[in-house]
This record gives sequence, structure tokens and C-alpha cells, in this order.
Amino acid sequence: MLSRGFLFLYCNKQGYRIKYFQSRPAMKYILGIDWGGTYIKSGLVDDKGKIVSKEVFASTGLKKRDIFVGKLHSLVSALGGKIKAVGIGAPGIINSKDGFIYYLPNVPGWENYPLKKVLRQKLKLPVFIDNDANIFALAEARLGAAKDVERAIFLTLGTGLGGAVILNGKILEGETSASELGHVPIDLKGKRCNCGGRGCIETFVGNKYLLDRYNKLKKQKTRIKEVSHIFKKALTGEREALMVWREFSKALGMFLSGMINVFNPQIIIFGGGVSGAFKVFKPLVTQQIHEQAMWPQVKGLKLVKAKLKDAGIVGAAILAKENL
Amino acid sequence: MLSRGFLFLYCNKQGYRIKYFQSRPAMKYILGIDWGGTYIKSGLVDDKGKIVSKEVFASTGLKKRDIFVGKLHSLVSALGGKIKAVGIGAPGIINSKDGFIYYLPNVPGWENYPLKKVLRQKLKLPVFIDNDANIFALAEARLGAAKDVERAIFLTLGTGLGGAVILNGKILEGETSASELGHVPIDLKGKRCNCGGRGCIETFVGNKYLLDRYNKLKKQKTRIKEVSHIFKKALTGEREALMVWREFSKALGMFLSGMINVFNPQIIIFGGGVSGAFKVFKPLVTQQIHEQAMWPQVKGLKLVKAKLKDAGIVGAAILAKENL
Repeated sequence: MLSRGFLFLYCNKQGYRIKYFQSRPAMKYILGIDWGGTYIKSGLVDDKGKIVSKEVFASTGLKKRDIFVGKLHSLVSALGGKIKAVGIGAPGIINSKDGFIYYLPNVPGWENYPLKKVLRQKLKLPVFIDNDANIFALAEARLGAAKDVERAIFLTLGTGLGGAVILNGKILEGETSASELGHVPIDLKGKRCNCGGRGCIETFVGNKYLLDRYNKLKKQKTRIKEVSHIFKKALTGEREALMVWREFSKALGMFLSGMINVFNPQIIIFGGGVSGAFKVFKPLVTQQIHEQAMWPQVKGLKLVKAKLKDAGIVGAAILAKENL
Repeated sequence: MLSRGFLFLYCNKQGYRIKYFQSRPAMKYILGIDWGGTYIKSGLVDDKGKIVSKEVFASTGLKKRDIFVGKLHSLVSALGGKIKAVGIGAPGIINSKDGFIYYLPNVPGWENYPLKKVLRQKLKLPVFIDNDANIFALAEARLGAAKDVERAIFLTLGTGLGGAVILNGKILEGETSASELGHVPIDLKGKRCNCGGRGCIETFVGNKYLLDRYNKLKKQKTRIKEVSHIFKKALTGEREALMVWREFSKALGMFLSGMINVFNPQIIIFGGGVSGAFKVFKPLVTQQIHEQAMWPQVKGLKLVKAKLKDAGIVGAAILAKENL
């Protein structure tokens, strides 16, 4: 069978000539990049948001700007013209219009870096960049748990607390990528946070803080290093594990009540590793919200787990698609 | 001189007749109602947002629903067809699309009341209702300190803390009037708030709380009853007064840092009685924000006092005009 192209028929008095011109391969895919603290995931995404191929790299080797840019270049080159755009979810504060990185809290050396400009020149392709939590939320809003919802709050519970807000179906953005929900303070005399502030909700619910609290309560010699352990122990009814999730839920419920009073969301979606314990903390967080938030703001509110696999890749592709 | 109207000329074989038809009075005004805890202000507003006449009533006599509705009816009747619509800023949680009042924290008896529906039937005029803080913000966004600004946070500092958010030039609303910024908790173990929650920012910066704190510090027999007194004393350098404003600014700065991290506003506008002390608390709040908020979110941020007089009346009229 002929590959995609067109037939050319030329006719004159001497006779005729026929020639088949083969088209360039259809540029129908978007390369979606989910840039996380541990892994960088790259996926080829079709127009319907389906991942047709995927690669995963350890982030450690790609921390430096030049190496990161070089890696993207080799990825794009290897795909030989199949790509029409690149979308990237980056872990930090960004000007998403300009694709300018102000800083990445957990990746030093990226301060004030015009990533979009650099990549456009290097890749010769349209490039779109936003904050990773915004990207996750975009994927859930278009294809996942917040589909057809006007107002949603999205949390990624992991090392930190990533947050995003969907309003009228769009991501809340400022001149920056905005909606840094993890850095809303809930305690005037709270612990110092990575961001430089004090008492941010992240210092109550981040991975590290949960493990610290649990290990302190357990007073064991060998430190527990996985939050999933605290989750499993809670399911067996262990006192210390339950206490960790109670404190976690109280803080998260207080914080969310503030956000509910501000946004009146229809749904709150929990993603990220720590949301593995959703079953344990959902009833506790719900109770705290009903005690704290104003009742007309809570009416009809749903708390759910994120639905999509690879939301980071898919969301990055959606970002590019919607802005092409 | 003839009053506004038109001339009618009728001609046939028998001759002609001429007649002058006087128009009905032009319905060019909107009645704007600023419904406050102490006073209800009513103003006739022209198309440019200028108040052409104004009346003020004590709220105490108008707390009951029937009396309030009757009063509006007599106001409208007295204006004899000059009005094309009525706009109302109400002190509570509302569904602004339906003009349905969920509740008014400081005016009991209004729970679940379809005010818009009742008034439309009674007044035979289009009626538009929103939360009072949203109304103030709308006025400032169109004609005041937030003119041509994309993202603004508006606070009314008084008995409580009213709040509103302007995004892309529009008021942030939910299914409710939303943006109840006064009820964002900033202290896990804070005081019980009027709203039923705990540690809301309102319990740190509301009028009553400032006076309680000052009177406690002063240990005087005669209680001070005016916040302006604490402001004046601070200007003379009085230790207790300065301490009240320092604590106020610390709490307000922490709360605002959270909102700045969420919204990345270009401007924060302070209205309401307590903002009389803006000169005293502005530098302290600014310092707290710079210590707490993430730097890219603060870039270019301005803190200013509200500009408009009678923003409540003008904003209510703008609400009606923009939704007519």
C-alpha cells in the first residue's frame, strides 16, 4: 500500500507523466513532559489525550539546565518530525505565558531561566510550560475526576503540597503560575517551611513531616522511611499511626475549610503519593471541614481521589494542545 | 419649552392634525442599596456611576424581612418610574445568580430567603443582589483603586473582615457569593469565630477583637469603644496601642501572604472603618508579607486604601447595570 501522499498527473501532446509524492510523516503527536523530583516522564500523546509511548528517566542526572535541554533535544530528534508541540509541567513557580522559570524549590540552579525561549530555539517547535500541579489539575479537569466541573481544588500530596484551582473550567493563574496552596499558613507560630515562610500547610502534611512525626511518636531505633507504612499501620489500628493521620487530617481540614470559604468548590481532588492513604484520612478531613467551613460553602462538596494515570504527561500535552 | 417627547403630524384630504406626545420620564437611574449592619444607604445612580441623590436609614428598624421589603417598595414608588433597576449589596452569604440569601451572620431571620424573587414581584423591576464585599470590590474595580487591574484582593476591615477577589477584572464567585476571606483560619488553636469555625483571620482583626485586646492591655476601668482611639494613641507612640497594631499586622500579614501565594494579586485594597489606621499598619503588614510570602508572588504588589466614597451604593448600581 502507498503511504500517505498525493498523485501528480502531467499531460501534454507528447503524452503524460505520472508521479507520486510522499507526504512528510503526519505531525500528530504532542510530547508531554512530567518533570518530577524523582523521575522525569516523557510521553507521546495523541489528539485524544492517549499516551502512545512513554519513557521514564531518573531526575538526578538531568538537574542541570544544559543537560535537561540537551535531553529534550535528543528525545525530539529521535521522534523525527512526528511531534507538533511540546508541553512541560515543571516543579516550581513559573510565568506560564512566557515559560519563564522564577525558581524550582527542589532543583537549584534554575533561577530566572527563560526555558520556553531556550527550548523553542533549540527544538524549533512550539513549547508550553506550566507548574506541575496546574498541569495535573488540567488533566483531571479535561479527562478525569473534575470533568465538566466549574470549580475544583486539586492537591498533590507528596514531598510537598502542590495545589491548583479550576475556576469556570480554567486553571487559576496569575502573572506567575499562582495557586501555591501548599504555602498558605495555618499556624502563626508554626515551623519554618522550605519556602522561607512559617506555618505553611505543607509543614503539616508533607511526606517528610509525617515521617518525622511518626518516628518521634514510635521512638524506634530504625527510622520508618515510607508513608505507606504509616498508612498500613493505621489500618491495623496502631495508636501512633492513627495519631499521625488525625493530626494530618485536622491540619488539612482546617486549611481546606479556608479554601472552601474562599472558592466554594464543587469537588476537591487528592493526588500524589500520600493520597494512597485517602481511605484513612477522608472521613477525618470531612469531619474537620464540616466543623470549620461555612455551611453554604460546603453544600454538595465532594472529596475524591485523582482518577488519571500519568496525569502529568497527559496534562502537559493538553496544555500544549489548548494553546497551540 | 416643551418637555421631552415627539411631534405627530397627520395629513389627509380634509386637512391636517398635529399633536405633541410627551414621553414618560426617562428611566435612566439605578437604585443602589448598601445594606450595612448599622446603616442602610440608598442612592439614585446615573449611567456614569454618579450618585444624584442619597438617603440613609438606621438598619435597626429594617431588620425584619417584611419591613425591609416594604421600605424598598416605598422608596421605589416615591421615585415614580425614574428607575430602571435595583442593585443591592447584602451582608452575608448569597447565591448571587438567584439573589437567594443563605444567611446574614449579623441579621437573624433571613435564612434561606429568596429576596430577588420577592423584590421582583413587589417592585416590578429587575433586581440584582450580591455580597456587600463583592459589591465594594466591583466599585473599586470599575471606578476606584483597582481600575484596569486584572487581579486584586479587596478587604473591608470593620466589625468583621469582608473580602472579595477580582480575577481577570471579574468578581470571584461560586454557586455562593464565595470569597469569604474573613473566614480563612490562620491558627489551629485559635478563638471561636462568629461563623462557627476557629482561628479565622476575622478573630484577629475584627473591630471587637482589637478593642478587647487594647482594653485588656490597658487594664483601665472605662472601656475604650472606638478603634480610632487606638489609632490615635499609636500615633503618639503609646506602647499598648502599638502592640495592638503589631499583633493585628502580624496576623493580617500572615493571612495575606497565604492569599498572595494563592492569587498573585497586583494590588490589595483596604476599605472599612479600621482601614482609617492604614498609615500605622501598612508598613508592618508589608514587612510581614515580605517575610512570609514567596518572592515571585509579591513582585510589583501594591497595598492601598480604598478610593471611593459610597462604594456600596455605586457598586450595587454597577452590578445592576452590568447584568441588565
